[in-house]
Amino acid sequence: MRQAAAALGADTLLAKGSADVFYLSGFTGDAGVLLIEPTDAMLFTDGRFETQAKDESPFTELRVVRGKLDTAVGEYLSRKARKVAYAPSQWTLTSWRVLHRAAGARTRWREAEDLVAGLRAVKSPMEVGAIRDAGKVACEVMEEVIGLVRPGVAELDLAAEIGYRLRRRGAGGESFESIVASGERTALPHARASERRIGKNELVVLDLGAILRRYCSDLTRTVFVGRAPARIRKWYKAIQEAHAIARECLAPGVAAGEVDRAARQVLDGHRIGTHFVHSTGHGIGLEIHEEPRLARGQQQRLKAGMVVTIEPGVYIPGTGGIRIEDDVLVTANGSELLTQLERDLVEL
Amino acid sequence: MRQAAAALGADTLLAKGSADVFYLSGFTGDAGVLLIEPTDAMLFTDGRFETQAKDESPFTELRVVRGKLDTAVGEYLSRKARKVAYAPSQWTLTSWRVLHRAAGARTRWREAEDLVAGLRAVKSPMEVGAIRDAGKVACEVMEEVIGLVRPGVAELDLAAEIGYRLRRRGAGGESFESIVASGERTALPHARASERRIGKNELVVLDLGAILRRYCSDLTRTVFVGRAPARIRKWYKAIQEAHAIARECLAPGVAAGEVDRAARQVLDGHRIGTHFVHSTGHGIGLEIHEEPRLARGQQQRLKAGMVVTIEPGVYIPGTGGIRIEDDVLVTANGSELLTQLERDLVEL
Repeated sequence: MRQAAAALGADTLLAKGSADVFYLSGFTGDAGVLLIEPTDAMLFTDGRFETQAKDESPFTELRVVRGKLDTAVGEYLSRKARKVAYAPSQWTLTSWRVLHRAAGARTRWREAEDLVAGLRAVKSPMEVGAIRDAGKVACEVMEEVIGLVRPGVAELDLAAEIGYRLRRRGAGGESFESIVASGERTALPHARASERRIGKNELVVLDLGAILRRYCSDLTRTVFVGRAPARIRKWYKAIQEAHAIARECLAPGVAAGEVDRAARQVLDGHRIGTHFVHSTGHGIGLEIHEEPRLARGQQQRLKAGMVVTIEPGVYIPGTGGIRIEDDVLVTANGSELLTQLERDLVEL
Repeated sequence: MRQAAAALGADTLLAKGSADVFYLSGFTGDAGVLLIEPTDAMLFTDGRFETQAKDESPFTELRVVRGKLDTAVGEYLSRKARKVAYAPSQWTLTSWRVLHRAAGARTRWREAEDLVAGLRAVKSPMEVGAIRDAGKVACEVMEEVIGLVRPGVAELDLAAEIGYRLRRRGAGGESFESIVASGERTALPHARASERRIGKNELVVLDLGAILRRYCSDLTRTVFVGRAPARIRKWYKAIQEAHAIARECLAPGVAAGEVDRAARQVLDGHRIGTHFVHSTGHGIGLEIHEEPRLARGQQQRLKAGMVVTIEPGVYIPGTGGIRIEDDVLVTANGSELLTQLERDLVEL
C-alpha cells in the first residue's frame, strides 16, 4: 500500500472513512483519520475513542484530538513539505476545506480515489471467509422468514423477524435496513418495509444482509403468495436467466460493464430491459456497496478475490417487481456462489 | 426558505443529503438532489426511484437521470447565470468537483451551511409529535430490556431484543446500531454490542433509539447487576446531577455551549470532569445527530422547538462507564422532557 502511494508520487497516505481506516488499522470507531508515512502510521481520533483505539490499533501512534480532527491533521501535515495521497470521495467539502487550509501551501495533494478502494476490492481468504459466513446466516434467515410470509402479515413485522433472527445467529448487525415489499410496492427497488399487510396473490420481495466479523452479505428472494399467473412466471424465468448468464460471465479479466451488459441483453430479449432500472451488481465487503460496480460501461477488470452481488431485477410500475440476488466470489477459473439458497420461484 | 436563500444573495437553493431533501420535498430515496428556484422545484434522481419520487414528491418537477446525478444537475445549472446556495457538508469532494465543473463559470456559489440545517433544527408540532412517539417507544423497550439483563446473557442477544421490540412496537427502524456494553466495556462510550456475556456485579449501558414516522429518539440508561459499590453510586449521582443541571439550563436564548459548560462544571466539582469525554448533547430529528450541538464553546442560541439529547457520562478506563440520556424539547419557558423513564440507579 505504501508502494501504491509511492507510485502516485506520494510520501504520505491519508485515509478517512471508517471502512478504509478499519481496513488499514483495525480501528472500528467512526471518527478517525489515519496517516501513513514511510515508516510510521498515526491515528487521529477524539477522546470518546481513546481506549478503544489503543486496544484495536496497537501498531499506530495515537493522537487524541480535542477540537476539530481535520484541523489537527492539517496542522500536523503542515510541519514539513509532503506529497499526500487521499481519496476525494471520503472527504466532505467542509472537512476538506478545513484540512486544506490547515495543511498550508507546502502540502502537495495527489488524488488517489482507488488506492484503498482497489486494495479492499480484492479480498483475502480471511475476508472471503467472513463474507461466506455472513452469506450463510443470510440464507438461513431468508429461508426461515420466507416460511413466515402469509396473507395478513405486515411488512414491518417480517423486517423485525429478519433483524432479530440475523442477530440471534450471531450477526453483529444488518448490512442495511431490510427491504420487505409486497404487492405493488415490489415495483419500488428500494422500498423500506411499511405497515402494509401482505395480501393474497401478491409478489413479496425480501432483501436482507448480515454483518459478520464486520463483513456484509446481501441477498434477495422474490416469492409469490398464491399461484403465480403466467406473466409473473415468465418474468421470473427471465430474471433467473439473466442471473445465470451474469454469473457465467464472471471471471478474472472480464470488464465489470460486460457482466452488466450480458444481464441486460437477456432482459432486452424478453422485452423487459427498460424495466431493469439499476445495475447488475456491486462489490461487497466492509461496506454494502463498494468496488467494483457491475454497471453500464464500467471498464474496470475483474480480479480473482473480488466478491460481488449479482442482482438482476424487473420493476413494472403499478404491477410489481422481481429481483434475485446472490453473492459471488470471482475465482481464478470463474466464480463461486457464496449464497447457496433455492432460486426457483416459491409459491406460498 | 426561499427568503433565507435570497438573504444570502442566492436565487437558487441546491439541497443534497437525504434528510435535507426529504425535509424540503417529501422524497425518501437515498439518491436525490433538489433544486429550488424562485417559482419551481426540481428533483433529480435515478431510475430506481422514479415511481417512488412521483408518489412522494408530487409538487416537484421530476428529472430521472441516466448517468451521473451530479453531472446532470451541473449541466442544468449551467444553462443560465445563477447564484446557488449550497451546504458544503452535504457534498463529497468528488461530487462537488463533478458538479462544479459541469455547472461552469457562469454559476456563482454561496456557502449556506446552516440554511436547511437551521430550519430543521426548529421542529414543528408535527415533528415534535413524531419524536415524542419515538421517545415513548424507546422508553417502553428500554424498560422491557432492562428486565432481561442478568448474568450470562450476551450483549448481542440484548441488542437483538432491542431491535425486535422496537419494530414490533411500530418503529420503522433503529436510530442507530444499539449500544449494549457490560463490565469494562462500559468505559467505551461507543461500544457496539459484542458476544460478551454479562457478569455479576457489573455495569451495563444500554443506548437505543426508535425511528417513528422518520424521526429519531435516543435514550440511554445504565444499570448495575448486583448491589453497586459506593464508588459507582457516587459517580451515578454525579451524572444524575449533571443531567438535571443541564436540563434546567435549557431555554430559548441560552447558548448551546452554556448547557455543556453547566454539565461539565458539575462533573468537575465531583473530580470526574476529565472522564466526561464527549459533549453534553446534540439535536435529534430526521437524523440522529443534527443541530444544535451542546458542545464546548458553541455560541448558537437555543430556540423554542429545538429537540436535543442531554447525555452526560463518565468513562473510567479499566473500570467502567455511566451515561444517562434523555430527549428534551426546548419550549417558550424552558424545556419539556420527551422521554419519561425512571432515572435512578437500577440494581438488578
